[in-house]
Amino acid sequence: MARIVMKFGGTSVANLERIHNVARHVKREVDAGHEVAVVVSAMSGKTNELVDWVQNTPKVAGASGSASFYDAREYDAVVASGEQVTSGLLAIALQSMGVNARSWQGWQIPIRTDNAHGAARILDIDGSDIIRRMGEGQVAVIAGFQGLGPDNRIATLGRGGSDTSAVAIAAGVKADRCDIYTDVDGVYTTDPRIEPKARRLKKVAFEEMLEMASLGAKVLQVRSVELAMVHKVRTFVRSSFEDPDAPGMGDLINPPGTLICDEDEIVEQEVVTGIAYAKDEAQISLRRLSDRPGVSAAIFGPLAEAHINVDMIVQNISEDGSRTDMTFTVPSGDAPKALKVLEDNKAQIGFDVVQNETGLAKVSVIGIGMRSHAGVAASAFKALAEKNINIKAITTSEIKISILIDGAYAELAVRTLHSAYGLDKS
Amino acid sequence: MARIVMKFGGTSVANLERIHNVARHVKREVDAGHEVAVVVSAMSGKTNELVDWVQNTPKVAGASGSASFYDAREYDAVVASGEQVTSGLLAIALQSMGVNARSWQGWQIPIRTDNAHGAARILDIDGSDIIRRMGEGQVAVIAGFQGLGPDNRIATLGRGGSDTSAVAIAAGVKADRCDIYTDVDGVYTTDPRIEPKARRLKKVAFEEMLEMASLGAKVLQVRSVELAMVHKVRTFVRSSFEDPDAPGMGDLINPPGTLICDEDEIVEQEVVTGIAYAKDEAQISLRRLSDRPGVSAAIFGPLAEAHINVDMIVQNISEDGSRTDMTFTVPSGDAPKALKVLEDNKAQIGFDVVQNETGLAKVSVIGIGMRSHAGVAASAFKALAEKNINIKAITTSEIKISILIDGAYAELAVRTLHSAYGLDKS
Repeated sequence: MARIVMKFGGTSVANLERIHNVARHVKREVDAGHEVAVVVSAMSGKTNELVDWVQNTPKVAGASGSASFYDAREYDAVVASGEQVTSGLLAIALQSMGVNARSWQGWQIPIRTDNAHGAARILDIDGSDIIRRMGEGQVAVIAGFQGLGPDNRIATLGRGGSDTSAVAIAAGVKADRCDIYTDVDGVYTTDPRIEPKARRLKKVAFEEMLEMASLGAKVLQVRSVELAMVHKVRTFVRSSFEDPDAPGMGDLINPPGTLICDEDEIVEQEVVTGIAYAKDEAQISLRRLSDRPGVSAAIFGPLAEAHINVDMIVQNISEDGSRTDMTFTVPSGDAPKALKVLEDNKAQIGFDVVQNETGLAKVSVIGIGMRSHAGVAASAFKALAEKNINIKAITTSEIKISILIDGAYAELAVRTLHSAYGLDKS
Repeated sequence: MARIVMKFGGTSVANLERIHNVARHVKREVDAGHEVAVVVSAMSGKTNELVDWVQNTPKVAGASGSASFYDAREYDAVVASGEQVTSGLLAIALQSMGVNARSWQGWQIPIRTDNAHGAARILDIDGSDIIRRMGEGQVAVIAGFQGLGPDNRIATLGRGGSDTSAVAIAAGVKADRCDIYTDVDGVYTTDPRIEPKARRLKKVAFEEMLEMASLGAKVLQVRSVELAMVHKVRTFVRSSFEDPDAPGMGDLINPPGTLICDEDEIVEQEVVTGIAYAKDEAQISLRRLSDRPGVSAAIFGPLAEAHINVDMIVQNISEDGSRTDMTFTVPSGDAPKALKVLEDNKAQIGFDVVQNETGLAKVSVIGIGMRSHAGVAASAFKALAEKNINIKAITTSEIKISILIDGAYAELAVRTLHSAYGLDKS
């Protein structure tokens, strides 16, 4: 007997038929004797509809200026209703199949969050009531994406927050496993749409999954992986669209999917686990920047305030100790805004000229094994050179090498690196 | 300065444009310096959609027998989300117009109910937090139709429960007035679709409004009128579709609409206030019923358990003290079910034969003034006789005379009585 948290996203609960299918997945685990908590998202499309209403209400009211921004607490009250509906419907579906179940809203458990409405962080989960009920054989069906703020109001965790809810609840109830059911059947060595030879990974270390963010964001929210890593929550990514009663689906130790876990649990560690990529990157370079303490803060502080997501940052050691060059990347769409922020702060930052180029791609080689292996980066450079792909910038971390290239070569680079590290061989 | 509770039904908040219109009504009262709480229903159609989902979920799950009934607590969790959405959107609309506003769910206030999920009754409202905030100039936008049960779960009040929420909140915050905004502009002497000469009443006593149930149910929930009567909440029925800034709309003492109030407040009391009617009634008569204590309970107990709504009940004094006849009416659609219940309980009740007739109509003459006036009933019988309308049964209360007739004469009878009591003269 184990304690399992199962999470189903919006496409998995998009209509009553799919909710029934989810109930079958849950029933399988209950019938196997496990204690189960289920975390659900809103029916797909619902959250968007609610968000649209929230955003359009000020416009319809003829608001302008600051009044046209909606209140985040009211946004939360409106948008959280989507998960509320799904939790109740799934509880009914389970009851109809003879499974004892009860829905829970964030405020009922309660899942306590901070006061950052619309993007709240979970502070604490009182799992005692749910644990007691699970012990009595009742499935807890929990509305994801939400909790209760210190102001006694619903606080949502931000888009995709249901993954985070699920992992936090798994930690809160000390679950043996957190199964994230989604529309893909696991984490792959790279995007199968680009490289058909991409293989599903059996296990990925938390750190690798984090680095795969740009690849993995489609599979799992980055914040949920961070949380899983901190609390060591063993997390399975698996498909909600497989037949719930297919062979092996109820396997306790090794169900079909990818396990995200502590690196200690991965016995045969590959040097490279996956190739990630991000397209539509823009590069911005500040030339002849005054090389003094605080200059980085002067650049990236205002960019952060403008909510511009800076990705790669490359700063080389200056030749004469007085002037240096700084290069960083942002999503192409953010480039004009970033350039304006830099111009506005030019006096404070102190640079000569700013250069930029859009339409770039970042390809990343990820693997926890590269910590202890030399020559991993060299293999990447050699493979790309053989295809005449020019490298514009390089950053590395302990377990990732990121390379900035012309966007036109993105797919070729991914396939080249995938093959260079032997990832297409099973 | 006054404290006002304003309630808007589903058609009044059906889309963002109408929610904006509601916000204009609210702003008018705020600008006049009043403290305001607003109670809202779900957008029209939303509750039906949610109820459909709840009802269909067991079917999709292939449930049969008792499992095909959904759990009332989960029904409540799902269905209450409709009002949650509207409350948040209206708060945003108000904020966009520069009005300080905040949404409140039943569990936040809290509005405490009993445990009868799906048809809960309000037990207690802690208005302290809302009163304090209204005093600080903040409009409380409250999700109607719901409260918090003793099990710490959302409990809904049953269909139309938003009226009841509004009146209960008006009592809880000691409001000077409760304005029920709806798609009609007040209470009329009779249904204007049947009698174009029907006039809007300026004032109606609580008791009269209760008796007008069959007429008034379209305007106001019966339970809300009972509650208003008990707590002496002055309740205005008025239109949400009039221009919020039309002349007189902000009148504190006498806004356009009908005031439902204590009879003491009605100085010039008419003898008859209105003519109500109900079509599609069925009459059921039990012949040669044993005339003994407990026989009424033996009849109406099982009918109540079968959720059959019995309306008129007529029992005549028996000639010989041993056998009597009992006649009552039910909605035509319930007649077959009622007959079956009677047959099933025949042994216990003890009657000779049962007769029934469907397609009848009940017309009622209502007026608190008839308490002190003789001859009111006689006028009705005379007026109907002149039109050759046969009277099948009569029941009376202190302030109502109800007459059962052939359904074909319903409209004629309404017009005849409306004119007989001079209601068509202003």
